Amino acid sequence: MTDRTPRFSASALRDFATSLMLASGFEKEKAEVTARHLVDADMMGHDTHGLNLLVAYVDHAASGGMTLTGDVEVVADRPAAITWDGRNLPGVWVTDKAVDTAIARARIYGQASIAIRRSHHIACLQTYLPKATEQGMMVTILSSDPHVATVAPFGGRRPLYTPDPLACGIPTDGDPILVDISASITTNGMSGRLAAEGKRLHFPAYLDAEGNLTDDPAVIEADPPGSILPVGGLEYGHKGYGLALMIEAATQGLSGFGRSAQAKGWGASVFVQVTDPAAFGGLDAFARETGWLARACRENPPRPGVDAVRLPGERALMRMREAREHGVPLFPGIMDRLTNKARSLDIAPPEPC
Amino acid sequence: MTDRTPRFSASALRDFATSLMLASGFEKEKAEVTARHLVDADMMGHDTHGLNLLVAYVDHAASGGMTLTGDVEVVADRPAAITWDGRNLPGVWVTDKAVDTAIARARIYGQASIAIRRSHHIACLQTYLPKATEQGMMVTILSSDPHVATVAPFGGRRPLYTPDPLACGIPTDGDPILVDISASITTNGMSGRLAAEGKRLHFPAYLDAEGNLTDDPAVIEADPPGSILPVGGLEYGHKGYGLALMIEAATQGLSGFGRSAQAKGWGASVFVQVTDPAAFGGLDAFARETGWLARACRENPPRPGVDAVRLPGERALMRMREAREHGVPLFPGIMDRLTNKARSLDIAPPEPC
Repeated sequence: MTDRTPRFSASALRDFATSLMLASGFEKEKAEVTARHLVDADMMGHDTHGLNLLVAYVDHAASGGMTLTGDVEVVADRPAAITWDGRNLPGVWVTDKAVDTAIARARIYGQASIAIRRSHHIACLQTYLPKATEQGMMVTILSSDPHVATVAPFGGRRPLYTPDPLACGIPTDGDPILVDISASITTNGMSGRLAAEGKRLHFPAYLDAEGNLTDDPAVIEADPPGSILPVGGLEYGHKGYGLALMIEAATQGLSGFGRSAQAKGWGASVFVQVTDPAAFGGLDAFARETGWLARACRENPPRPGVDAVRLPGERALMRMREAREHGVPLFPGIMDRLTNKARSLDIAPPEPC
Repeated sequence: MTDRTPRFSASALRDFATSLMLASGFEKEKAEVTARHLVDADMMGHDTHGLNLLVAYVDHAASGGMTLTGDVEVVADRPAAITWDGRNLPGVWVTDKAVDTAIARARIYGQASIAIRRSHHIACLQTYLPKATEQGMMVTILSSDPHVATVAPFGGRRPLYTPDPLACGIPTDGDPILVDISASITTNGMSGRLAAEGKRLHFPAYLDAEGNLTDDPAVIEADPPGSILPVGGLEYGHKGYGLALMIEAATQGLSGFGRSAQAKGWGASVFVQVTDPAAFGGLDAFARETGWLARACRENPPRPGVDAVRLPGERALMRMREAREHGVPLFPGIMDRLTNKARSLDIAPPEPC
C-alpha cells in the first residue's frame, strides 16, 4: 500500500462518483450501480479498472458515445439463452443486470447465458462475481471490445483483437474463488499506465510492429503499432490465441456485433453465464469438491521465493476487507483527475478518512 | 510425416480397433464409437491420444477398471443441465453420446450442458467437435482426471491436478475453428513420451520436487514427483492456474465426483456444453463474425520465422483430409504394440495401404 494517496471511505467514494455521474446526465440507478462496481474494483486492488475509468466514462457520455437513459433492447429470448442490445448504455449497469437476470433463469433451467451487443465498457470483471457466488452460483463473464485491437494472433504481428478477459466466480464451502484473467499476457490498462510512466514490463510480453519480442509497452501506441502477445507467448501462444477466439466467438459471435462492422468507438460485447450447481450434482457436492481443492491449493508447499500459495481472488477479498475497515487507497493521480472534473461540475471532492 | 510407420486406411484401422475391443468384451456400439474417435485423433495428428491409448484401454477393461456394458445413470435432469454417472463406461462413447444429447437440448433451450462423473478416459477432445460445428453449434468440452495429479498450483511445487484440457468447436462460414488446449504448458501424454525416450522439452515447462525450473519431463515420474507448470509458467502462471480451477469446478464440482474422494484409478470427470447461435443473435450473424475473424487471422502478416498464421484446428483438418486420401500414418511403436495385443486375441493386424 506504499506509493498511494490517502485513504477514503468506500461510501464517500461511491457518493462522490454517483454525484459526478448524476451531474453528467446518468440516471440514478445507473450512476449508483456503476459507482459501486468502480469503487469495488479499487477496494479489490484493480486500480486500472476502478475510479481510474470514471473521468473517461463521464467524458464519453458528454461526447454522446454513451447512452444515459432507458433500458436494454431484447434481441432474442429463449429459456436458457438471452440476447440483448445494450444500446451503448453504461456497461457496468448492463452487466450487473445481466448477472441478476442469468441467476434467475439458472434457478429454473440449471444454466442460463446472456450475450450482449453494444454494451459500453464494463470495467473490472471480478466485481460482478461475488453476487452470484454468495447465492451458491457459478458465474462466468467474458468481454471483448470490437472497436479495439491490441493483440495479434499467434504467429502474427498485426494487432487484431483485445486482451479478451475471462472471469469466473466459483462458490466453495468458504470464500469463493474469483478468477479474473485474460487471453493475453498483460492488459491494455496496465500497458497504457506503464507506457505513460515510461516504464517497461518486467519480462517481454510484446511484439513491435516488425514482430520482434520486447518488454516496451510503448510499441502498442507506436505507428505502425506493435501488439501484446497471447498467453503462452512465443513458445505456446496457441493457447492464449485459442482462448481468445473462444471469447471473441462467445461475445461478438453470439451477440451478433463484432469486428466485421469495423466500427469506431469504445464499448464491449459481453457474455454472461450462470450455472446452478444445485441443478447438477448438488450444491453440497460442488462445495465439497471446490472446498477440498481450495484447501489443497493453500496447503501446497510453495516453491523457492514464494511465501504461500494463494487462490485467485484471495488477495482481492483480503484487500476488500481491509479497505472496508481502514478506507480505500487510490492509485496516485486518480483523485486529482476526479477532483478537476468535479470542480467543473461544482461538486465537492471527498475528504480522506 | 517423417519418422512414422507405413500408412493404413482409416477404415482398416477402425475395423481392427473395433475387433480388438469386441474380443475384449466391449459392446458393439461402444467399440465402434471408440474406434472411430481414436482413429480420428491419429488422422488429426494427435498421436498421443489416438490408437496409442487402445492397448491401455483394453488392458484396463481386462483388469475390471472399465465397465463394458450398459448405459450411463442419470443423476439429475433439468432443462439445460444434465448430470450423468458414467459408471466407468468407455469415456469416448460416453462423451460422444453427451455431445449428441446436448445438441438436442440446445436446439430447444438455446444452450445445454452435461456434467459427467466417473466416465472412463475420453482420449482426444478435438475429435468430438466437428459433429457439433457441422450442425452450426458451438461446443465446449472440459475434462479432468480426479485420480491423477501432475500439475502444481501457481506458486506451489506439489502436483495437485491434471493438465485439464479445454476444447471448443466454433462454426464459421467456412472450416470450423477447433480449439484444443490445456491449462498446463504441456500434457501428461507428451511428457510421458519424451521421458520414455530420454528426451527433454525444448523449453523449461516443469518444476522438480524442490520447485526448481527444468526442461526434464522425467521429474514427473520421480520420487518425490515434480510437476508440470500451469500455462503462463513462473511469470504469469496465475492464468493457467485460474483456468484449471474453473475446469476442475465444472468437471468435478458440477458432476459431484472429484479429488476429495482420494480415489485410485483412471478415468475422467467431464463437462460438455453446446450453444446454439440460432437461439442468440442468429447463426448468420455468428458465422459472419467468426468467418471475418478467421480470415483476419489467416491474413495477418507473420512474424519473422513463421510462414503463415494458422487457425486452431487448421492443421488437424488438413491432416485429416490427407489421411483420408493417402492413409493414416501412425507414430512409431503404436502398430507394434497393437499387433502384439492382437496376436494374444487371435486377431489379424491390418496391412499397410
